Amino acid sequence: MRTNRNHKSIRVLLLAALALFTTNVMAQETSVSGQALKKPTLNDLIPGGETFRRVENLYGVQWWGDVCIKPDIDSLFSIDPKTGKETLLLTRTQVNETVEVSLQHFYNVEFPWADKPYMLIKAAKSYVVYDFRAHKAVVSLPRAGRSGNEANTDFNYNYEQAHLAYTVGNDLFVDGKAVTDEPRGIVCGQSVHRNEFGISKGTFWSPKGTLLAFYRMDESMVTEYPLVDITARVGEVNPVRYPMAGMTSHKVQVGIYNPSTGQTVYLNTGDPTDRYFTNITWSPDEQSLYLIELNRDQNHAKLCRYNATTGEPDGILLEETHPKYVEPQTPITFLPWDDTKFIYQSQRDGYNHLYLYDLKKLSSTDDAGTQLTSGPWLVKELLGFNAKKKEIYFSATKESPLQTNIYKVGLNNKKITRLDNGEGVHNATLSASGTYLIDRYSTPTVPRVINLLATQNGKSTATLFTARNPYEGFEMPSIETGTIKAADGTTDLYYRLVKPADFDPNKKYPTIVYVYGGPHAQMITNGWQNDARGWDLYMAGKGYIMFSLDNRGSSNRGLEFENVTFRHLGIEEGKDQVKGVEFLKSLPYVDANRIGVHGWSFGGHMTTALMLRYPETFKVGVAGGPVIDWAYYEVMYGERYMDTPQTNPDGYKACNLKELAGNLKGHLLIIHDDHDDTCVPQHTLSFMKACVDARTYPDLFIYPGHQHNVRGIDRVHLHEKITRYFEDYL
Amino acid sequence: MRTNRNHKSIRVLLLAALALFTTNVMAQETSVSGQALKKPTLNDLIPGGETFRRVENLYGVQWWGDVCIKPDIDSLFSIDPKTGKETLLLTRTQVNETVEVSLQHFYNVEFPWADKPYMLIKAAKSYVVYDFRAHKAVVSLPRAGRSGNEANTDFNYNYEQAHLAYTVGNDLFVDGKAVTDEPRGIVCGQSVHRNEFGISKGTFWSPKGTLLAFYRMDESMVTEYPLVDITARVGEVNPVRYPMAGMTSHKVQVGIYNPSTGQTVYLNTGDPTDRYFTNITWSPDEQSLYLIELNRDQNHAKLCRYNATTGEPDGILLEETHPKYVEPQTPITFLPWDDTKFIYQSQRDGYNHLYLYDLKKLSSTDDAGTQLTSGPWLVKELLGFNAKKKEIYFSATKESPLQTNIYKVGLNNKKITRLDNGEGVHNATLSASGTYLIDRYSTPTVPRVINLLATQNGKSTATLFTARNPYEGFEMPSIETGTIKAADGTTDLYYRLVKPADFDPNKKYPTIVYVYGGPHAQMITNGWQNDARGWDLYMAGKGYIMFSLDNRGSSNRGLEFENVTFRHLGIEEGKDQVKGVEFLKSLPYVDANRIGVHGWSFGGHMTTALMLRYPETFKVGVAGGPVIDWAYYEVMYGERYMDTPQTNPDGYKACNLKELAGNLKGHLLIIHDDHDDTCVPQHTLSFMKACVDARTYPDLFIYPGHQHNVRGIDRVHLHEKITRYFEDYL
Repeated sequence: MRTNRNHKSIRVLLLAALALFTTNVMAQETSVSGQALKKPTLNDLIPGGETFRRVENLYGVQWWGDVCIKPDIDSLFSIDPKTGKETLLLTRTQVNETVEVSLQHFYNVEFPWADKPYMLIKAAKSYVVYDFRAHKAVVSLPRAGRSGNEANTDFNYNYEQAHLAYTVGNDLFVDGKAVTDEPRGIVCGQSVHRNEFGISKGTFWSPKGTLLAFYRMDESMVTEYPLVDITARVGEVNPVRYPMAGMTSHKVQVGIYNPSTGQTVYLNTGDPTDRYFTNITWSPDEQSLYLIELNRDQNHAKLCRYNATTGEPDGILLEETHPKYVEPQTPITFLPWDDTKFIYQSQRDGYNHLYLYDLKKLSSTDDAGTQLTSGPWLVKELLGFNAKKKEIYFSATKESPLQTNIYKVGLNNKKITRLDNGEGVHNATLSASGTYLIDRYSTPTVPRVINLLATQNGKSTATLFTARNPYEGFEMPSIETGTIKAADGTTDLYYRLVKPADFDPNKKYPTIVYVYGGPHAQMITNGWQNDARGWDLYMAGKGYIMFSLDNRGSSNRGLEFENVTFRHLGIEEGKDQVKGVEFLKSLPYVDANRIGVHGWSFGGHMTTALMLRYPETFKVGVAGGPVIDWAYYEVMYGERYMDTPQTNPDGYKACNLKELAGNLKGHLLIIHDDHDDTCVPQHTLSFMKACVDARTYPDLFIYPGHQHNVRGIDRVHLHEKITRYFEDYL
Repeated sequence: MRTNRNHKSIRVLLLAALALFTTNVMAQETSVSGQALKKPTLNDLIPGGETFRRVENLYGVQWWGDVCIKPDIDSLFSIDPKTGKETLLLTRTQVNETVEVSLQHFYNVEFPWADKPYMLIKAAKSYVVYDFRAHKAVVSLPRAGRSGNEANTDFNYNYEQAHLAYTVGNDLFVDGKAVTDEPRGIVCGQSVHRNEFGISKGTFWSPKGTLLAFYRMDESMVTEYPLVDITARVGEVNPVRYPMAGMTSHKVQVGIYNPSTGQTVYLNTGDPTDRYFTNITWSPDEQSLYLIELNRDQNHAKLCRYNATTGEPDGILLEETHPKYVEPQTPITFLPWDDTKFIYQSQRDGYNHLYLYDLKKLSSTDDAGTQLTSGPWLVKELLGFNAKKKEIYFSATKESPLQTNIYKVGLNNKKITRLDNGEGVHNATLSASGTYLIDRYSTPTVPRVINLLATQNGKSTATLFTARNPYEGFEMPSIETGTIKAADGTTDLYYRLVKPADFDPNKKYPTIVYVYGGPHAQMITNGWQNDARGWDLYMAGKGYIMFSLDNRGSSNRGLEFENVTFRHLGIEEGKDQVKGVEFLKSLPYVDANRIGVHGWSFGGHMTTALMLRYPETFKVGVAGGPVIDWAYYEVMYGERYMDTPQTNPDGYKACNLKELAGNLKGHLLIIHDDHDDTCVPQHTLSFMKACVDARTYPDLFIYPGHQHNVRGIDRVHLHEKITRYFEDYL
């Protein structure tokens, strides 16, 4: 059993869900005169559909040092970022003749080692590190593990010392030897804390590959939630370790393994009960390990240093507290040209910004560091450095909360310079030396462009790709965005309105609110089609107006915007959504008697909550995988925003939708997956019981075999199901 | 864990379900002129409803020897059956002053010992055998058992030797001493074989109380099905031992415990694998134990005798085989005046009839016995004997398949005499000497009458009770019955038609078929309102025509009528139901485009099967707790009719509704209970998956905490839910 393989937080799955729809569809407001345009079907619009019209992409473009790599099916090209000149680097035949990987294309290969001619191939049956100069495998590890049914996973290779770390079952292996041998319930070398706090992996090679830091999580004391697999001959339990709010949580330790001695030292943190160890970083000299520790209440973070040889603590360098919560999500990053200085990210002025710290000062004084960025916008990602020019590269929302653009800041002059075109949503990767960027972006009307930029001046040196409109020949709705005031009367909230292609302002349209509303997410951006989802476009095609609003509590607007919901999730968010409905009702073409609402996960909570708290407003709702009672949600995410049921009983009660089951008036369909290990099925089933007790009449559907959403081809079925419900009742 | 407490067969639950609706409602075709009649609500019509209009009853009328006992709240009366004269026997105050049972009324007390002045009180906290002459407790056993949370159950007292048997957890106790001490997975002293084969208890005192026969069932090798309790803080598994068709089943043994020696002997049956030991009877002299053994294929039954002292086999007295199946459901019964003769019931001539056997002849010759009853009708229950007159009393369907009447047959002249009024459905109990009967009956227009009858001539000596029409002042539909031909073109099938009170033959009505269709059940009788259910009456009140048809495969029509479905359950039954629809369509007032279907359990299977096999015929269906795949059903019931998946793969495939999921066109709502241990939730959930795979769109609802139906107050919710579905879509 390696139950933690399946641990997913709302956040992680939300990001996965966003990925499903941010790059899929395209507005098509022009109609080809004289030609009948056809309406797209769900199969055209929903990821997983047989005819899904994905926005074209150039998959796998990446840096190998300062060389841009452009994969294709049969060939792999290098591109000189200065000139844009392409050179054939490798053919698929060359690889397949040398190693047994049956490579089908180059789109998934990786070049993580800037100064070695190594390519990482994650093939169906093995992981291979391939030397594309010498044409041979440097490392080859079959995916099938020891016992045949336990896979080798968490592949992590360090070329400097040629050490290979991976996991089998619950244990960590290095160079074929077992580093740990733990009983069921203890997991080593994998991601911990349910992927919260920015954690996404469980092994961390020291910079020179001499030592391996790794997570060890004892979850033997955590309650198992019984998911039932009905595809077995006789239904059988697939238990998942699921610590619920206020209950006993797992205990995490950090080990450091030395391959040359075969010895492991565990950090001497003291009793790990109710403590989170996050954001592990090695010191450049490998002498120290840094991590950010957080208390269970999540209102006190400490940047701690440990001696990597002895495991003993070596000082607390920084501390952050907040009356509500702090949420460290990024490790510190040392300057490549100065081992004594590092970049630290913090929301302490209300927005996530970059701070420069000097280890020497931190050791002696209470240093506040140097704030490198500031203002009512936030840094989204630290992209890297240019050591020669002492510049730092990052993405941020500086132009608009709906945008993400690419910037550099000079370490000496603190001058911020935008490097991209200033529009839309950009996603960039920096070359090893920091001289070039791969800049991928979209705008509401541009599905996808991939450029190479020189960081010196932001000038494009090559356009690698421009996606075509995936909906040429289709009749598509119109999309607009705007702002209204939140329920606090002052805060601007962004909305998106999708109108049918044949919109007639004199008609009255049924209208559906698509909602998420929780932290870590933003539904409306200036990316492709303002992030309208395929289903929104489909429903607009069927004559609905589709509306979304990023309420207070959602992402990318700063700490106070987010934490206004603290200890009573769903309530302020709902008030804002009602402001959205008031706005809708002010529009003459919205039929105020036919307003529906749909959302998944936190959005499923919001959907259900809106149906119950505003039964006269919403006629029909479809909630997917909803949180019904935060007491059933997991410790890490849940307690950050809600504290525990013991310390916040009133808040848990006020936000427990079972308490409101008697309010249901309209038609509410709740959909849940029977293998949902993020919002366990207990949420929805206990709500059904509450409604039966209260003699109200929700509807229910369950997708067997799916987790915290419905993916693949079944996603089309899901949206047909949702559509029929609105068609029947709205 | 005592999982077998919850073992219920479809049969047992069906009987329980029938009990819910056979005695509830009343036709009211007369309207009180000048007065507006109101329509009954679901709360009036559904058992569990706050205003449920139950047919009045005289609860707990029974025999104590030849004295009729009539309970009331504060008093208990004896009635002289000769004169009908009532005498006060006991007051509640007398009992409560003597023993601590807090008796609330006398309705549930029992008088199982004809020749002792003992009354059995099953009080909330204890079982008490109360001597109502001496006014003292003879036995008192608290219900709370050893460990506080394990109850004392299966109370079985034998007064001759004053021995008390009961069970605690999985073990059997006698007189306070543990007879067995078994590990988890082995159950002693309780009913076995999932209550099939007429088994309803696990302990059997010998006639003089010297020895106790008991069942021991090892189910440790049986797969556990995981039902999930979502009312726990964290959802937890409530596993039930559930042997699925073709899989490993439990093993049953029969022990004989001697309280005077403390020794137990197990019958030497040999390896109990795949054998059923049913219908245990003691010989009158306590020297032998009789049982009917059945092979796993259920086509070969043997009446076996064992030596009660040694446990060794002592001969096979009778054998029955059938190419399809045999189903022994009643133990042999010795004549009270001749220990060498017994009554044996068999369907071997096609109908269940009584046979007299002589042990002396059986020992020496291949005796066919003496057939006491015969003809194209069946004996339903052997009621007892009159030793003086050498008469046997029984109930049977001799007048009509829709009726049950009371008869006697003279052992010498074999003359059958009817004792009741020849109408309706009678349920009688015979006094100890066989001189009087308590005769309870109803007819389509008589809700309930309770008479005392003299068995000499069938004359009523007293009318104890006549129930009033529970629907006085209500507007009630009309009910009619009739016959049509089955799909075989020759067999008569009985139907029931319920029409709205304001029926207008010139209108077109939507029509709903209520179906069960499986063995062991009959939906249409000549009992009160022809067994129309409360929901049928309700829907007729809302303007629907309600139709039911007892197809081939159902009960009380003889063996060939039932076993035509062998190895392909649901298919012939469906063809007959389609004949019913053809009949409906021939009626000018039935709207042929608006025909729906509803049923539970086997009826849930039928509903789903009809929706899938005849998608053009049925527009809307609501299936409750359906069997979807007989491979998921239990061994005892399932293999009787379907053999195993290994020996009948084609039949299992043809009857597996998942294979037909792609045929779904109309609206089909499937309702399942999350604690259904008869049809496990895997049936419905796997069907949902099959429909998702096939891109069809059923609806689903789950009732948490309920078993193989929804009972109590939630039953009203259930029927409102069902009603709304038909209202929305039919």
